[in-house]
Amino acid sequence: MKYSVCVLGATGIVGQRFVSLLADHPWFKLEILTASEKYVGRRYGEVVNWVIDDPLPEHVREIRVSSVSPDTIVRERPDIVFSALPSDIALKIEVELLKKGISVVSNASPMRMEPDVPLLNPEVNADHLELVRQQSRRGWKGILAKVPNCSTAILTLALKPIADELGIRRVVVSTMQAVSGAGLRGVPSAAIIDNIIPYIKDEEEKIEKETLKILGSIEEGRVKYAEVAITASCHRVAVLDGHLEAVFIETSRRVSAEEVKEVLREFKGNKIKGLNLPTAPKNPVIIREESDRPQPRLDRKAGKGMSVVLGRIREDKVLNGVKFVVLGHNTIRGAAGTAVLIAELITKEGLI
Amino acid sequence: MKYSVCVLGATGIVGQRFVSLLADHPWFKLEILTASEKYVGRRYGEVVNWVIDDPLPEHVREIRVSSVSPDTIVRERPDIVFSALPSDIALKIEVELLKKGISVVSNASPMRMEPDVPLLNPEVNADHLELVRQQSRRGWKGILAKVPNCSTAILTLALKPIADELGIRRVVVSTMQAVSGAGLRGVPSAAIIDNIIPYIKDEEEKIEKETLKILGSIEEGRVKYAEVAITASCHRVAVLDGHLEAVFIETSRRVSAEEVKEVLREFKGNKIKGLNLPTAPKNPVIIREESDRPQPRLDRKAGKGMSVVLGRIREDKVLNGVKFVVLGHNTIRGAAGTAVLIAELITKEGLI
Amino acid sequence: MKYSVCVLGATGIVGQRFVSLLADHPWFKLEILTASEKYVGRRYGEVVNWVIDDPLPEHVREIRVSSVSPDTIVRERPDIVFSALPSDIALKIEVELLKKGISVVSNASPMRMEPDVPLLNPEVNADHLELVRQQSRRGWKGILAKVPNCSTAILTLALKPIADELGIRRVVVSTMQAVSGAGLRGVPSAAIIDNIIPYIKDEEEKIEKETLKILGSIEEGRVKYAEVAITASCHRVAVLDGHLEAVFIETSRRVSAEEVKEVLREFKGNKIKGLNLPTAPKNPVIIREESDRPQPRLDRKAGKGMSVVLGRIREDKVLNGVKFVVLGHNTIRGAAGTAVLIAELITKEGLI
Amino acid sequence: MKYSVCVLGATGIVGQRFVSLLADHPWFKLEILTASEKYVGRRYGEVVNWVIDDPLPEHVREIRVSSVSPDTIVRERPDIVFSALPSDIALKIEVELLKKGISVVSNASPMRMEPDVPLLNPEVNADHLELVRQQSRRGWKGILAKVPNCSTAILTLALKPIADELGIRRVVVSTMQAVSGAGLRGVPSAAIIDNIIPYIKDEEEKIEKETLKILGSIEEGRVKYAEVAITASCHRVAVLDGHLEAVFIETSRRVSAEEVKEVLREFKGNKIKGLNLPTAPKNPVIIREESDRPQPRLDRKAGKGMSVVLGRIREDKVLNGVKFVVLGHNTIRGAAGTAVLIAELITKEGLI
Repeated sequence: MKYSVCVLGATGIVGQRFVSLLADHPWFKLEILTASEKYVGRRYGEVVNWVIDDPLPEHVREIRVSSVSPDTIVRERPDIVFSALPSDIALKIEVELLKKGISVVSNASPMRMEPDVPLLNPEVNADHLELVRQQSRRGWKGILAKVPNCSTAILTLALKPIADELGIRRVVVSTMQAVSGAGLRGVPSAAIIDNIIPYIKDEEEKIEKETLKILGSIEEGRVKYAEVAITASCHRVAVLDGHLEAVFIETSRRVSAEEVKEVLREFKGNKIKGLNLPTAPKNPVIIREESDRPQPRLDRKAGKGMSVVLGRIREDKVLNGVKFVVLGHNTIRGAAGTAVLIAELITKEGLI
Repeated sequence: MKYSVCVLGATGIVGQRFVSLLADHPWFKLEILTASEKYVGRRYGEVVNWVIDDPLPEHVREIRVSSVSPDTIVRERPDIVFSALPSDIALKIEVELLKKGISVVSNASPMRMEPDVPLLNPEVNADHLELVRQQSRRGWKGILAKVPNCSTAILTLALKPIADELGIRRVVVSTMQAVSGAGLRGVPSAAIIDNIIPYIKDEEEKIEKETLKILGSIEEGRVKYAEVAITASCHRVAVLDGHLEAVFIETSRRVSAEEVKEVLREFKGNKIKGLNLPTAPKNPVIIREESDRPQPRLDRKAGKGMSVVLGRIREDKVLNGVKFVVLGHNTIRGAAGTAVLIAELITKEGLI
Repeated sequence: MKYSVCVLGATGIVGQRFVSLLADHPWFKLEILTASEKYVGRRYGEVVNWVIDDPLPEHVREIRVSSVSPDTIVRERPDIVFSALPSDIALKIEVELLKKGISVVSNASPMRMEPDVPLLNPEVNADHLELVRQQSRRGWKGILAKVPNCSTAILTLALKPIADELGIRRVVVSTMQAVSGAGLRGVPSAAIIDNIIPYIKDEEEKIEKETLKILGSIEEGRVKYAEVAITASCHRVAVLDGHLEAVFIETSRRVSAEEVKEVLREFKGNKIKGLNLPTAPKNPVIIREESDRPQPRLDRKAGKGMSVVLGRIREDKVLNGVKFVVLGHNTIRGAAGTAVLIAELITKEGLI
Repeated sequence: MKYSVCVLGATGIVGQRFVSLLADHPWFKLEILTASEKYVGRRYGEVVNWVIDDPLPEHVREIRVSSVSPDTIVRERPDIVFSALPSDIALKIEVELLKKGISVVSNASPMRMEPDVPLLNPEVNADHLELVRQQSRRGWKGILAKVPNCSTAILTLALKPIADELGIRRVVVSTMQAVSGAGLRGVPSAAIIDNIIPYIKDEEEKIEKETLKILGSIEEGRVKYAEVAITASCHRVAVLDGHLEAVFIETSRRVSAEEVKEVLREFKGNKIKGLNLPTAPKNPVIIREESDRPQPRLDRKAGKGMSVVLGRIREDKVLNGVKFVVLGHNTIRGAAGTAVLIAELITKEGLI
């Protein structure tokens, strides 16, 4: 028996990734897809402007689009709802679902920093899931887990082993982000061809804050934020998928590039190791030794889009630490894929 | 009477910019264009694969391509030779010309760090020009001035006013560089469409070293390097022209964004102010207040490509300083335009 | 004294071109800019997402955005209104303005094929302007002239001299159209990077119909459609500006490529020759002899964007005629530029 | 026992596709890879600038690059040599191999139109393979089969069923071709970003000639060319892979779009049906009914890149026939994939 799942905002780019990842999932059955009211009742295959590289699965094409209204959704009784809703409407709808007993794994940014809401990047902080036990105080009957901001999900996978084994004091990160991160209508082609847009609303703040929570530890039922200082500069480039980040780290003590590679290579995502979650990549962190990798187009599908790929790991004498570039697939590792992995963790842990 | 000038490597992208800037120059007359031996004797308009945005000037179209052989060039007796030669052949040819009494302004990287060779970004360090007086010891009868690496030329214009007025301790810079920086054949389209290449050979080292020389001061006839520590990460993106750089600075004391803007706004390129050099932009540094500027396509032609444009100037609490993005036209400000400006300075100073 | 002009839909891409062309126009004074209701009262410079290559003129930046409501516009009494409105709202607003005595030059498609509405590409059919005399029957107190569809404006300039001098029976045209033709939000970057969209709604029908009207002659006060058969296939490509069209023509008699070049070279836009309209290009049709021109990026600004550029003119033995490629700037020659040229014609003819 | 195969020109883009298709082929064992002399003896993984979307297979990475010298190759005794050599060197090397008894399947253009050399698109004209029997007259001990020009391979799959069932008189085709078709260094990014190049050397002539041979029938041991007249216009666009072609056909009699779809749908590649060749796609021709398909990025991998995808099939009243767009993967269906399919056919037929 598979769990019945629903995707809110199924026609957007993240929605399309959810559809692609869930169409043939071994544990989940994709039964409900919501979209704008104007599409309700029509076939998904007719209304979606499919743009992602994986083909639209044939059997999903026929699903009739549902309304995003919580009442309608509750009537269908999905076991898990994946939310790819825009921030401005996500909060209200997600809370209504939670109150009505539906569990939600959400990409939307509201509530990510709430103390009783786990912000999960499973290989990094699956143990934060225990926070959901506190959610009943809010009168929620379902549980809520949040997926980190896309750039942050990618970054924290690279930082975690170094923070644990070598210690991190300061991080400077400059991102080069794909257009899919802004959603289907987010970046007009007339704005980005032969161009870079050196600004992504709220992105730098999210990276600077969320990282501290994700790398934090659970102490007495609360997240103790990591003591790391992060500064970010975020830029949109003409790439379809895959966020590339140039990262400069001040480590707690002087380290060699070889030591850093060593701890990264040994990282297997211990927090979920042994759980055999279907979407967990064999190697959450992959190191490439070529001088010119990772590249978005060549490396974004590593580990089916769930691995991050690091390259150009070199000592940084200015910051007394290390610098490298890291790449991850922003709508898989940075959104839908991590959401599905979280849902797998939740069901495996018996929380649903 | 105009000075007669020659461009070595005139069919490349930097060569094309030289042609465009020199075709109607008030002081210089473009008379000699060199290219590969196979093109010698043919019309420039026939052999060049013109790709830059400014149109190929009609009268240049008819110039017959010359050989790059120093003997041939010397026979024509140009007053100044601009070199856009590839690094691997530049050194030999430039030195031969210098020995034969021809002055050279060169974009090629060899000899940039030699103590008696000025590495000039005129608004920043025109006073370094005095180093040429030491070149006669080498047996050169012409003088040699070098143009900085493209990213470095852009960066040092932004750093100079801050270094002078507020003090800089450390700089972290992450670049997003245009394909024209690699020359006409440098970046195959099959490698860069929907992609980023996170590596540019030797670029990081050039930024990290050249900046110290350019920001240095002349003391007892030698350049005393600036005491700044710089770390760089360089990336190639699918942009035609315009290098964008995300810069994070640790200043000598805590500063506000407003203070930084103030010193940048007041910077008028004092080192060449009042000389009325034709290619000098009115404002070498332009500040934009919009949240999403500078953008390569919209801002690279500011000041006819000779200004750098800064935006998103904000305090950086992690580095105790400031962060911003800066953009410059890599083949104008970062190459041919600065070379022409240097040549104007040299002639104005009566050195030729 | 300049004519006061207004641009409806001033924040879109065509609107931005209008602003750029009208900001310093010798005959027209740009006084009114309309945009979405949410922007009314705010400064144009603050609300526009400026994406075109020419810089936003400083004095236009400060203009307060007006409402598109006809009552508001009429109160300002502009002499001419340029409409860059979306088709779905254009008809109603334009008719209301006409009834209230405001003259309109419009890019919007509705009414283009009405018998008493001139569809003008001035060098081709300025004489069609006389149709406006019949508009009073509709109760309009202003006059209405329509700009052709962008691809059609470009195509008809290339066809006109051939049709007149050599005769055209059939035309096959395959377009490669720039993203700006779809407006600012028309083509998401996630849809077009590394891609082609082989469909543009209604475009083929517009080309196939409008061409016949534009190439038609005025007989007894009516347009007699040209007897040409046209079939089109339209495609969107990842180019910012400039529509390229591959054209295959069956001529009335066998012709040589040289004959075709000859008639194209001699075409000077006789219909408006001698009127000295400021926006009329010296050569409305330019021929390039290189094997690989015209190219959108290199040739779209020919004649300040008002010339079309033909290349690769060669005999076609299969269709018994000629084939070539033609390029034009879609938002200048294909929209705002032609609209301004029409307005110049109207005022020169004393119709306002 | 697998056949031992060799790829000449293995580091180019077509070479990379060969490597990808042959690395785990059920019948062929990839043993020899040749490249420029400077790379001979080095590991393939070190010297190749891998740019294609499929990952470089791990075990191929270690293969030592061989010299393209026929003597060296003969010593290794491969059963089949796949040639992805540039035209200018292909002829000599291929003929030497043939004389020494090595069979060659070649993408290079020389000899494609020779009467005794089959130009094969297997689903269309596998029966032309019999021409190889005449090759012994040349003193060749191996056999030679040629792959068509990439655009032609795609086009002829679409034309074949229509030609056979409905009759074709004239064809007008306008192509939009991917950069990979020009090889790794063929299209500089500085030339194609935000641009189209409306010229591909010799491409139009190849389409116009090769199509007639491929669609021809074998009569008395010779190819009788098809009686079809074709005119082409070819253009390079900023797409990585996938040639899109707008095709206009004059059929022998008036046809409806539905009839055309019907004959296309029924086409199963009869010439090789039942042979169970591993690389043959289930449906060599796929029809899409959406208004905006096929698109290169979404459809080029249909049938693992071996199917062509047609869309927008509509009647054409101007040409008295039909018009549509067709897409194929230029380096798979248009090059390496078809070559592998030919090799499968050759071995299945017992010719090696």
